[in-house]
Amino acid sequence: MELSPTFREMEAFIRRLQDQICNGLEAFEPIQRFQQDIWEREQGGGGWTRILTGGKTFGKAGVNISSIHGEMTKELASQLEVEEGLFGACGLSLVIHPNSPKVPTIHMNVRYFETNEGRSWFGGGTDLTPYYPYPKDFKEFHQTLQRACNSVIPSSYEQYKETCDQYFTIRHRAEMRGVGGIFFDYLTGTEPKHADLVRAVGESFLPAYAPIVERRKDESFDAVDTIFQKIRRGRYVEFNLIYDRGTLFGLRSGGRIESIFMSLPPEVEFHYNWQPESGSAQEKMLSYYQPYDWING
Amino acid sequence: MELSPTFREMEAFIRRLQDQICNGLEAFEPIQRFQQDIWEREQGGGGWTRILTGGKTFGKAGVNISSIHGEMTKELASQLEVEEGLFGACGLSLVIHPNSPKVPTIHMNVRYFETNEGRSWFGGGTDLTPYYPYPKDFKEFHQTLQRACNSVIPSSYEQYKETCDQYFTIRHRAEMRGVGGIFFDYLTGTEPKHADLVRAVGESFLPAYAPIVERRKDESFDAVDTIFQKIRRGRYVEFNLIYDRGTLFGLRSGGRIESIFMSLPPEVEFHYNWQPESGSAQEKMLSYYQPYDWING
Repeated sequence: MELSPTFREMEAFIRRLQDQICNGLEAFEPIQRFQQDIWEREQGGGGWTRILTGGKTFGKAGVNISSIHGEMTKELASQLEVEEGLFGACGLSLVIHPNSPKVPTIHMNVRYFETNEGRSWFGGGTDLTPYYPYPKDFKEFHQTLQRACNSVIPSSYEQYKETCDQYFTIRHRAEMRGVGGIFFDYLTGTEPKHADLVRAVGESFLPAYAPIVERRKDESFDAVDTIFQKIRRGRYVEFNLIYDRGTLFGLRSGGRIESIFMSLPPEVEFHYNWQPESGSAQEKMLSYYQPYDWING
Repeated sequence: MELSPTFREMEAFIRRLQDQICNGLEAFEPIQRFQQDIWEREQGGGGWTRILTGGKTFGKAGVNISSIHGEMTKELASQLEVEEGLFGACGLSLVIHPNSPKVPTIHMNVRYFETNEGRSWFGGGTDLTPYYPYPKDFKEFHQTLQRACNSVIPSSYEQYKETCDQYFTIRHRAEMRGVGGIFFDYLTGTEPKHADLVRAVGESFLPAYAPIVERRKDESFDAVDTIFQKIRRGRYVEFNLIYDRGTLFGLRSGGRIESIFMSLPPEVEFHYNWQPESGSAQEKMLSYYQPYDWING
């Protein structure tokens, strides 16, 4: 299958973006650096996995690219509601788990998919999973996304924000995994504005996240903050393994397991029926894991 | 819906079994005791959840009963390949996570399901998830199950052992979550031998597990043993959230989330691309997470 110019442009974009983001995150690390593993997929393509672990600021940070192509499996074709045939898919996917419970976990993903029958889509999104109630951070995060999206497609932030609230919900618990962000999928690949949007979202990652890291990374925290962080990271695992399309797509399309599961937090606790103390910061934080208008709220 | 005499007998059996097992496990605990939460299901039935946490021997042990009935959801009927209608389901499900990496995690489950159209099935199984290579323990565990099963139905152990090897496999990693045991499902409920088998399996739990706990609970262990335990518990989470029918049935049938997720280990670590040292006990243990004939091997 001949991969399209759009595919090649997206591939070049995510290569540059990976460098840019890794450099930006390493600025918070005096010693640790991203380590790269290059992997090949038997049926076509492969990836550049970059992981930083055991850092001063970040316990586990993964900024991964993959670019794969080949025959669709029946399962994949059915998930995508297309005829079986050849496909190409490339994307960047990152999940950052900081050490401090005062610094949120973040996820960001941009991706492009095309078939040999000329169908193509962009998708992507980003969402913030904080463990401490700092509404100022959440509002600024959403404002940065709003500027990035709406500068390319007016009112798109508002639409993708709502989709995100629905998507990043742990349905069996009727709660979100964090404070949302944006999520979009199946944006037709032949529309140039969609490529622009995806670039704007990718480039908004550092401006949206780095100021929060800078502001919170040296704040003190206590044992309850850490337990709450580990419990909420358990909810992150619940979401990723039960609902996350990216994870399930990866497992179904023969992706590299260790690269897919870089998203899982380094340390997790599952407590039976844990409840926050009344009036605590944790109780407050729980109330924020619901859809909320962070811009105007 | 009138629940059948078989249902009522099964319900009485699992109530007794829950007491017996909780007493047997508490014998390893100088102070901690099982705490009971009784819950009701809005659409009919409920459960008796018993959890022991923070023990000397057991970090998190759950021995749960549920007995539910009502209208099947479309999703449930489709999963079971039956017409929508009324159903009753009861069972005991336990997962025990000890503190020491020398003592295996164990799971056991017996269950009964019936519809208002007169269809009914027994199911169940047990499997052992060790973190240290003690083949003697694994062999004795399988021998006890063989005696329990084959005393009721000749050669049933051999059949259910093979089903277990297939079922408790983390497919995306092509490895089992432990060293297997037995697994059976859709045994027709109108066959008295099947009720006998389920009782024999339930009653074999303490004889199969308690001697291993007794033998290993006071052995010393080191930091690598503990990290390996936490990493393998991560694999346990992968299995339970992606593949386990019991977990998915619970989530789909409106079960109580905290009771379903008592199976998740108390502390878990997800490391990127972790590999055991060459020649280590952990490397040996990894080789045991594959189907193996523990009786004759």
